[in-house]
Amino acid sequence: MNNVNHNQPIAQTAGAYETVSAIIAPIDQLNILSKVEVAKLLDSSQSGLYKLFRSCALAVLNTGNDTDNGKELLERYKDFDISIVQEERGIKLAVKNAPGNAFVDGKMIRGISEHLFTVLRDVIYNNDELSRNPKFNVGTSEGITDAVFHMLRNANLMKPGLDPNLVVCWGGHSINRIEYDYTKEVGYQLGLRGLDICTGCGPGAMKGPMKGATIGHAKQRITTGRYIGITEPGIIAAEAPNPIVNQLTIMPDIEKRLEAFVRLGHGIIVFPGGAGTAEEILYILGLLLHPDNKNIPFPLIFTGPETSAEYFARIDKFIGDTLGAEAQAHYKIIVNDPATVAQEMKDGIRKVREFRKHSDDAYYFNWQLKISPDLQQTFVPSHENMRNLELHKNQPVNQLAANLRRAFSGIVAGNVKEEGILAIEKHGHFELHGDYEIMHPVDELLESFARQSRMKLPGREYIPCYKVIK
Amino acid sequence: MNNVNHNQPIAQTAGAYETVSAIIAPIDQLNILSKVEVAKLLDSSQSGLYKLFRSCALAVLNTGNDTDNGKELLERYKDFDISIVQEERGIKLAVKNAPGNAFVDGKMIRGISEHLFTVLRDVIYNNDELSRNPKFNVGTSEGITDAVFHMLRNANLMKPGLDPNLVVCWGGHSINRIEYDYTKEVGYQLGLRGLDICTGCGPGAMKGPMKGATIGHAKQRITTGRYIGITEPGIIAAEAPNPIVNQLTIMPDIEKRLEAFVRLGHGIIVFPGGAGTAEEILYILGLLLHPDNKNIPFPLIFTGPETSAEYFARIDKFIGDTLGAEAQAHYKIIVNDPATVAQEMKDGIRKVREFRKHSDDAYYFNWQLKISPDLQQTFVPSHENMRNLELHKNQPVNQLAANLRRAFSGIVAGNVKEEGILAIEKHGHFELHGDYEIMHPVDELLESFARQSRMKLPGREYIPCYKVIK
Amino acid sequence: MNNVNHNQPIAQTAGAYETVSAIIAPIDQLNILSKVEVAKLLDSSQSGLYKLFRSCALAVLNTGNDTDNGKELLERYKDFDISIVQEERGIKLAVKNAPGNAFVDGKMIRGISEHLFTVLRDVIYNNDELSRNPKFNVGTSEGITDAVFHMLRNANLMKPGLDPNLVVCWGGHSINRIEYDYTKEVGYQLGLRGLDICTGCGPGAMKGPMKGATIGHAKQRITTGRYIGITEPGIIAAEAPNPIVNQLTIMPDIEKRLEAFVRLGHGIIVFPGGAGTAEEILYILGLLLHPDNKNIPFPLIFTGPETSAEYFARIDKFIGDTLGAEAQAHYKIIVNDPATVAQEMKDGIRKVREFRKHSDDAYYFNWQLKISPDLQQTFVPSHENMRNLELHKNQPVNQLAANLRRAFSGIVAGNVKEEGILAIEKHGHFELHGDYEIMHPVDELLESFARQSRMKLPGREYIPCYKVIK
Amino acid sequence: MNNVNHNQPIAQTAGAYETVSAIIAPIDQLNILSKVEVAKLLDSSQSGLYKLFRSCALAVLNTGNDTDNGKELLERYKDFDISIVQEERGIKLAVKNAPGNAFVDGKMIRGISEHLFTVLRDVIYNNDELSRNPKFNVGTSEGITDAVFHMLRNANLMKPGLDPNLVVCWGGHSINRIEYDYTKEVGYQLGLRGLDICTGCGPGAMKGPMKGATIGHAKQRITTGRYIGITEPGIIAAEAPNPIVNQLTIMPDIEKRLEAFVRLGHGIIVFPGGAGTAEEILYILGLLLHPDNKNIPFPLIFTGPETSAEYFARIDKFIGDTLGAEAQAHYKIIVNDPATVAQEMKDGIRKVREFRKHSDDAYYFNWQLKISPDLQQTFVPSHENMRNLELHKNQPVNQLAANLRRAFSGIVAGNVKEEGILAIEKHGHFELHGDYEIMHPVDELLESFARQSRMKLPGREYIPCYKVIK
Repeated sequence: MNNVNHNQPIAQTAGAYETVSAIIAPIDQLNILSKVEVAKLLDSSQSGLYKLFRSCALAVLNTGNDTDNGKELLERYKDFDISIVQEERGIKLAVKNAPGNAFVDGKMIRGISEHLFTVLRDVIYNNDELSRNPKFNVGTSEGITDAVFHMLRNANLMKPGLDPNLVVCWGGHSINRIEYDYTKEVGYQLGLRGLDICTGCGPGAMKGPMKGATIGHAKQRITTGRYIGITEPGIIAAEAPNPIVNQLTIMPDIEKRLEAFVRLGHGIIVFPGGAGTAEEILYILGLLLHPDNKNIPFPLIFTGPETSAEYFARIDKFIGDTLGAEAQAHYKIIVNDPATVAQEMKDGIRKVREFRKHSDDAYYFNWQLKISPDLQQTFVPSHENMRNLELHKNQPVNQLAANLRRAFSGIVAGNVKEEGILAIEKHGHFELHGDYEIMHPVDELLESFARQSRMKLPGREYIPCYKVIK
Repeated sequence: MNNVNHNQPIAQTAGAYETVSAIIAPIDQLNILSKVEVAKLLDSSQSGLYKLFRSCALAVLNTGNDTDNGKELLERYKDFDISIVQEERGIKLAVKNAPGNAFVDGKMIRGISEHLFTVLRDVIYNNDELSRNPKFNVGTSEGITDAVFHMLRNANLMKPGLDPNLVVCWGGHSINRIEYDYTKEVGYQLGLRGLDICTGCGPGAMKGPMKGATIGHAKQRITTGRYIGITEPGIIAAEAPNPIVNQLTIMPDIEKRLEAFVRLGHGIIVFPGGAGTAEEILYILGLLLHPDNKNIPFPLIFTGPETSAEYFARIDKFIGDTLGAEAQAHYKIIVNDPATVAQEMKDGIRKVREFRKHSDDAYYFNWQLKISPDLQQTFVPSHENMRNLELHKNQPVNQLAANLRRAFSGIVAGNVKEEGILAIEKHGHFELHGDYEIMHPVDELLESFARQSRMKLPGREYIPCYKVIK
Repeated sequence: MNNVNHNQPIAQTAGAYETVSAIIAPIDQLNILSKVEVAKLLDSSQSGLYKLFRSCALAVLNTGNDTDNGKELLERYKDFDISIVQEERGIKLAVKNAPGNAFVDGKMIRGISEHLFTVLRDVIYNNDELSRNPKFNVGTSEGITDAVFHMLRNANLMKPGLDPNLVVCWGGHSINRIEYDYTKEVGYQLGLRGLDICTGCGPGAMKGPMKGATIGHAKQRITTGRYIGITEPGIIAAEAPNPIVNQLTIMPDIEKRLEAFVRLGHGIIVFPGGAGTAEEILYILGLLLHPDNKNIPFPLIFTGPETSAEYFARIDKFIGDTLGAEAQAHYKIIVNDPATVAQEMKDGIRKVREFRKHSDDAYYFNWQLKISPDLQQTFVPSHENMRNLELHKNQPVNQLAANLRRAFSGIVAGNVKEEGILAIEKHGHFELHGDYEIMHPVDELLESFARQSRMKLPGREYIPCYKVIK
Repeated sequence: MNNVNHNQPIAQTAGAYETVSAIIAPIDQLNILSKVEVAKLLDSSQSGLYKLFRSCALAVLNTGNDTDNGKELLERYKDFDISIVQEERGIKLAVKNAPGNAFVDGKMIRGISEHLFTVLRDVIYNNDELSRNPKFNVGTSEGITDAVFHMLRNANLMKPGLDPNLVVCWGGHSINRIEYDYTKEVGYQLGLRGLDICTGCGPGAMKGPMKGATIGHAKQRITTGRYIGITEPGIIAAEAPNPIVNQLTIMPDIEKRLEAFVRLGHGIIVFPGGAGTAEEILYILGLLLHPDNKNIPFPLIFTGPETSAEYFARIDKFIGDTLGAEAQAHYKIIVNDPATVAQEMKDGIRKVREFRKHSDDAYYFNWQLKISPDLQQTFVPSHENMRNLELHKNQPVNQLAANLRRAFSGIVAGNVKEEGILAIEKHGHFELHGDYEIMHPVDELLESFARQSRMKLPGREYIPCYKVIK
């Protein structure tokens, strides 16, 4: 650490991008580590985990910048370095050539430094804890849920004693200004009603509701508002947590991230988005359509401004065509009415509270929800796996939803995730098989997304990464 | 109170405007009142103070709406009624036909109900306390300062133990979108640096810095940010406090309001505005030019986006023409650079801290600042008083600044205050006398404001309320 | 202040008693004073109030020492001096030759320094405020109650939002070890049940319940326990507040002090004592026997260890003989059963809560209690006033109780108060007139007190200060 | 759980002892358990751990009672039962026929219910965690220290950010009234100086300092005082935690408990006691005499009232005779001067702070202290192990101290611990070998303890459990 100037950060200009080097002190529980733990952290950070740790850390530091391409980000800050240093009474983090935006007058923004230590906790410490500890059996559905529970508890996201008030907001990270302002307005209306926000913690529909809720909470003099971000290593670069997020966790993969959303949240609002949003919709429908979940209340609202009316009409038609009216009964579509969205959500959550109270279930973790293994298991969107997906009506509707979700998951990977992009570059387009009555709506929907520029950041051309083989 | 439904607010539509009736419970110190005090409040609210109380209350409730015309507001909600009711263990406020915007699902927004009880405290209770208590001698300069101190202490605005960090932001309430966004960005940069905000608490340049600082504070995990609003009965209707304001006080008149700003704040930022902003600039210059204040550090920055460069160039020229280079030395003009504004302000406040520490002065009240009586005494902008103003260079420069301020004060009244508008309707234009070398720059400046639509809300035509008689 | 060493206290030995000189910084609200207020304090402290201020301050500082004789105390520390010094950003107190017990390693115990500033607030500041402010009309019963309310509010003793839980404990300040231990045990049982304590804040029965409750609260993890002391200038030297008292107020005279107890407390426990305790019993009975208070619940328990059974038997007989069975119905006597005392008190306070809730009365101030002027007006125990007391049965029973109280009040003054002792030294014994059926029980009771050494500190001989003229 | 009346505790009289049955809700972190964890707890509590869990729980509930004999306690409450019940949203504890003293009006004292869940956490949960988790290697010295660290962290006993202020108080649990009052006075003086207390958490010298410090803290308005109790399953029955203890932990054995004391505390005060106290003295001397610890400051004070002067003189002579002047240099003996004890300790801790600051060591855990394996390894005081102890001067002085400690440890077991008493009943007296110059002082010291009744509770006859074979 010779070339790092302690407490006197060095600002440099690396190419076009200003960077800063600094030593960051930890916050809260990482303050008290045993000698053995510090040694293990120092070891781990040299191991294979280091690459993951570095790229997640860079994503966190890059907040507020303009790229959502993980690969591009890594190239832009190729001199970025992060390491654990053992110092007086514990550990610190040394960052070199970090994005300048994360600092104010050479001092890291406190919210971002909290996120940085969250990355350390979740990527290195937890992974170690979870993978080496024999008590977690992630081969079973119960084991996966148990692991999700432990990660959320370790991230301090479960607060006994709080009434249900957590609204999960899903939607695109690269929506237009009108849609973004609408998500802020909905967040504001939720905040005015004392509801907290949980999102995937990137920009767009993940940021707007939090900003809006911040103002709503301020007006209601609520100083304990929770802005929870749940992300995963593969998506964090494209959707860096905005610093309003005051509770962050990085789940190991997309399936555990989705399980975290539905176990933790008390209702879900879906804003306009692209393929990723469709994937999330298919996940929650696949889950709510499971016969065991029939009587569990779960408010689910699709909403957007006037300009998104067509978007939701298409989604609704797609769901009707592929999954049928039963699926359509699980959500409400509300166009251009933020106050009504917030009122409906508040009402829905009141029912969730009554149900949990009556059934002696915890408020902070939805134990009763049955999540079938096909929604829990990691789906690796290899060309082969994509080709083998069963996309026909000859199966229970919740299974069909789960398979459709996988198809969309692969498509999102091919569009914005580093390894997905590389795979497409190498092996060419994904190929999807299926019944015409399934695949035709899929095709229609995806084309409409492309037409509406809902697959990429504005200002770039969309290049499809799949072919539908009917 | 027969026709008010306790705890079940009634929503009605009065003409085009939705209204709500409700009973509001008090917050904090107004919770504990003696029987005698309650009786006095009930009395007072029937007295001559009632009209003032009602119009201030209506202004507070009207926040977020679109009018800045007090007269129009009173007409729009002419069925609005507010009364004190003696209830179980104290008092409550009953509002009838109040603007619907102040409520969420029939419940008053907590920030607004705090403001409503602030109106009660400041308009009825304090007035009574201050006017009847012989210990305040408002005939002397020291007596006025003592009264200002007591009002601010009673409003709980002085916190011993805090380091100086309060930035007063002045500027127009009807600025354009680009300017408004700029004030937000400056507030954000101030908030990121741990600075708190104090404004006149209306929309525009009074709201933007607070919204920005709210986000800045959230990112820095500061939950104790102060958003202080200082208003007065004559301006509150035009500039209703936005609910982010978490500490509000209503000073009895504009001079005590201005004294409150400079005694409480540790630095001032001036954003683009119109005649009101010019008045504030003249006030602070008149004060800083006083020989006794020569060595007191007081950071003063004029700033705005690129589009406001001309505005500040004109102000600067006007000051140079009328008050000279000595006056120009008291401020910096920074165009389109929010981060630098915040850095300069932080540096300036650091010097304020050193100075106060060294001279054993309080951090929470600027006792050393000499405010001459001509800046403290109420200026009633009657046609006669306006006509008698001395606007020539044959006087100390701080006195000239004070007289120029009075001229602008009258013009603001004639443009947006209820009684000013009525006086102009009745007696015709104000007439201003003065030397050519003073009045020509005045005339130029006011014309430029009119041209830039800086005298009224956008969408209305500006009709001047004065004539300059050279 | 030349000869005071700032921040480096000087310990000296004045005769046999160690003393310390130091500068003490204020706490809380006295931090923010205006220039005018500081000037007034400096003035006042030179005026006639100074003697009162000095003797109360000395009493507060003398806590834990062995004398309960105010005169002796003033002589012992005749070099003691206290003055207000104007310092950086406010005021401080300079004490010279103060009792060493108030300090730990040269630093004043924080609880004691809080008490010292309470003396400043209550003796100088409040007196000034109350006596000069025309809004208090202490010529009427309502006016006195209003003044009491303001003093208690200014002392921050009323907390809206708390459930009734304040138990007033009365009893002797010079009780024996067995009785003292018993008061601790009762305090412990009250504390275990979440009840707070209010006493006259001296040693003995005023200290024991607080010490016990401190331990009870600690075991129940209650960190917000209130230990309220209400004293008055004439008694404070004999009954210096013990530092456990975390909320102290000095009422201007004994009648307002007694009114403060009954307005603030939700129930009263009387421990063994002497004439002072008998006085307090007569006060509360005079009050509860008022026809207007017939239906107001007010738990009243007399209790002590086995050894005090006779004491209470005598009190009970005295009350039966003079005031009759109606008076006896207002209290319960419980001998040697702390847990039952606490349970009964808890039950009684539950009824108080229900009554106040039902009648919309405040929890923090007993507005409904009627206190007749003969219990409110100051009784100066001059030889003439004592001689004129009407002590016969030909009057309403509550009036008789009030007159009996005055008789006892005079006797307490003649025994432990500085001016009372001087008056007896000068004019000889008080003479009391009255019916035989009243005066014989009085005589019997007082003799029994003397026999049981209940009129003075142990170790001193009791010399009666009165003669009963039958 | 059919016969347990939820929320309506049943009071019964079991023989002479009143008992209560109730359901107790958990506090804090045990609120959030996963389904797997709850299942494991339910399992464990049926397993071999149950006996340990039950006896520790009974000890905690028995606080304030008069027996210090674990065997007697178990017999007295042989109908006592405790079980984990799975209830709405988590777990609760059902106790049947529990000692009545733990309840106030049928509700368990909050401090005791916290202790009960501490037993659950430490006996069942932690044991499971520590014994099954491969990451703890308790075969090495570092591994043991690591385990101690994790137990203390899990018990929330380490607070970063606090200045060193934790005084460990050792001494007898069955001392006489004069000695007990003295420990209270020392605790009071420590509390007045802002120091916190850590003890073995039984009665006597373990309770007095905490009670005293509670009052000292109250006078200094310190509401965050820590009263830490560290116990172990074998001693808890004889020395039940008093409920003032607000942070409790049960270490698995006496060696880890002793390590916890010296790693956590910043200084040690030793009050009069018996063999157990001598054991603790030998432990700390064995540790401080280790060559590696030569330069580590560690304030160590032996103190008691005038009546204990002889006791400490004997200890001092014993140490001089066996370990020499080097050992005597590590402590100060202060007789009958609580204020000086507290001042010396405060000074000593100031040096500890400087040392740790300078060497970058943590304030909350004394990492630098070298504890040799012979002080860490569990010593099972079997008849054989006792017979094999090396008690001669032909070894480094710190090893001799360690061996002497083991000898005393066995003697304490034979006197007050359940299994020790049984072993003596079965196999007869322990036999101790050793040099005359060692064993003669041991013999002298133990005899003097017996003579002074320092080996048992007052009122019982002392029967020695050992023979010294010279």
